[in-house]
Amino acid sequence: MEVIEVLHMNGGMGDTSYANNSLVQLKVITMTKPITEDAITKLYSSTLPKSLVIADLGCSSGPNTLFAVSELIKVVDQLRRKSGHDQSPEYQVFLNDLPGNDFNTIFKSLPSFQKKMSNQLGAGAGSCFFAGVPGSFYGRLFPSKTLHFVHSSYGVQWLSKVPEQVESNKGNIYMAKTSPPSVLRAYHAQFQRDFSMFLKCRAEELVLGGRMVLTILGRRSEDPSSKECCYIWELLAMVLNEMVSKGLIEEEKMDSFNIPQYTPSPSEVKFEVLKEGSFIIDYLEVSEVNWSINDTSEINSSYDQFCDGGYNVAKCMRAVAEPLLVSHFGDAIIEEVFSRYREILSDRISKESTCFFNVIVSLIKKEWS
Amino acid sequence: MEVIEVLHMNGGMGDTSYANNSLVQLKVITMTKPITEDAITKLYSSTLPKSLVIADLGCSSGPNTLFAVSELIKVVDQLRRKSGHDQSPEYQVFLNDLPGNDFNTIFKSLPSFQKKMSNQLGAGAGSCFFAGVPGSFYGRLFPSKTLHFVHSSYGVQWLSKVPEQVESNKGNIYMAKTSPPSVLRAYHAQFQRDFSMFLKCRAEELVLGGRMVLTILGRRSEDPSSKECCYIWELLAMVLNEMVSKGLIEEEKMDSFNIPQYTPSPSEVKFEVLKEGSFIIDYLEVSEVNWSINDTSEINSSYDQFCDGGYNVAKCMRAVAEPLLVSHFGDAIIEEVFSRYREILSDRISKESTCFFNVIVSLIKKEWS
Repeated sequence: MEVIEVLHMNGGMGDTSYANNSLVQLKVITMTKPITEDAITKLYSSTLPKSLVIADLGCSSGPNTLFAVSELIKVVDQLRRKSGHDQSPEYQVFLNDLPGNDFNTIFKSLPSFQKKMSNQLGAGAGSCFFAGVPGSFYGRLFPSKTLHFVHSSYGVQWLSKVPEQVESNKGNIYMAKTSPPSVLRAYHAQFQRDFSMFLKCRAEELVLGGRMVLTILGRRSEDPSSKECCYIWELLAMVLNEMVSKGLIEEEKMDSFNIPQYTPSPSEVKFEVLKEGSFIIDYLEVSEVNWSINDTSEINSSYDQFCDGGYNVAKCMRAVAEPLLVSHFGDAIIEEVFSRYREILSDRISKESTCFFNVIVSLIKKEWS
Repeated sequence: MEVIEVLHMNGGMGDTSYANNSLVQLKVITMTKPITEDAITKLYSSTLPKSLVIADLGCSSGPNTLFAVSELIKVVDQLRRKSGHDQSPEYQVFLNDLPGNDFNTIFKSLPSFQKKMSNQLGAGAGSCFFAGVPGSFYGRLFPSKTLHFVHSSYGVQWLSKVPEQVESNKGNIYMAKTSPPSVLRAYHAQFQRDFSMFLKCRAEELVLGGRMVLTILGRRSEDPSSKECCYIWELLAMVLNEMVSKGLIEEEKMDSFNIPQYTPSPSEVKFEVLKEGSFIIDYLEVSEVNWSINDTSEINSSYDQFCDGGYNVAKCMRAVAEPLLVSHFGDAIIEEVFSRYREILSDRISKESTCFFNVIVSLIKKEWS
């Protein structure tokens, strides 16, 4: 399976789309705003660029895509007004995701978004120019030294591929308590290769002093098979195993399916950054968000469509994982899989407290790397 | 009707898609190659940029989209080798079209295209970074002074809107011999406003000495209602009028439909460029291509899918005009319209020689505009 060809969030604007089922991700962007704001404030104040180039890597499609970058631009515009700079920078925003991402839906929403944004910013603000960039962030995406700021939320935990040598991960679809140590090692090694390549590419693309804020689905624990990060996939594996036992899925198919993801701990992130050597860590923390968020008070009211009771974690996971499952198992089993998954998830959420963990790291491109 | 919302070529890869019905447009890009090559050669030789930024405006979707820019990059790479420059520029390519364009189809074809291109260029060539830019080229699309080269083929004849005051154009859908003089004046005035805005925006976006090659569907004659440019639409109007008389289309609907296009003469193009004042005209010519091209020998063999007898001008016009017609008349009449149009076109092509006329202009951004 080539991850670059099959991984993408569910497109369109329908009931199972990512656009309508990404409230957790929006909550996370909102939670991490103080860190992103701090980083872009420091960047703008120290460089005062005429043209500010921002890239959002793994932007997906839907309201989150434009929310993150528009908040960054608002911060810069407030700073400009406060500091009395007459000349606003122009903004160039690059929205990146894999080629299978639904860019058409983003692009169709842009004219009305740009009109709204220009009204909100008011007179004197610089123009915002948007571009979509299809491709894997585990390779170069931009010319050298052209970016000022890189943002990525819930993207970097996706690996460039399913690690090799995970054939022995029978009954599991991700790292799990019952995974052999060789599987855990293979996942970790793939993360190290991928994340190190990610840092190297961004170091080439960022201007000196440029900044990057990454929010990565991760864990607090040092145990890679910790329930913190693996439970959500273990429950999906449980569904698939049930369906194998009922003859609905071939056992061989199940055994060869593994999720191309690695949910790192903060110290694993720190280790790779220091080893790669191009960035200074300005800030590093872990936060958590409940699977079944119900506190949407912080979330911008323009995202009301999320809040009309339609949210549940099963739909969110479906928007994320459906293309991977379809590519491996075909689409005939999908409704059954997610109907069973929804039941299991509802049951667990009612009985235990379950969270997604976010590793947030704010980085500065070293002057002389 | 907001042109920005409804105008786009037919998406996807199906039988009626633009991707599979744009052989005339490919032929035109191939015909104008010597002029484009000359312009990029002069640009590269005089500036030797580390990063060469190229924009293709009105790129549509399909093989033509990537063909035009890949030819430009090949020219630069050959120059670099000949002149013994070890260091290749990196290439950043912006593909622009209106937000309704099918960018997803372009983006999905990029990984294999980039692989093929990198093989063709061989070792030492700079990386090519692609981005999609949705929006109207009658407004700013890029930050100031960031582009080196702008290319646009068969884009600029599209107006930003149907001119006002063309209500009296009854029985016609474009400029025609029977159009009142006020309609011809309204079309011309809209072209002047739009093209002048186009030049102004590009002048802001291009670096000093930057270059632009535009191929515009146009005419040789100074008469705006000349058969040279109007006949193809007059025949479509004939179909729609027949369908009105048979009660298949409401007369009122027909009378309120007009094509947002203006096909200028070379002297009209020259006049606007001189009036706007930011550009020097390096070259200006008119060429022509037969409606029913059958000489495909010049066309790159990788575009063989075009050459398998599937081409006809009715399908080409459908790929271009269907979204406009659907937005105004609904989709129920479309099959009937194009079945009748195909018959009329076949009949005329068998009896007379009919051509599309191309106005090609090569421009240099003045150093001190």
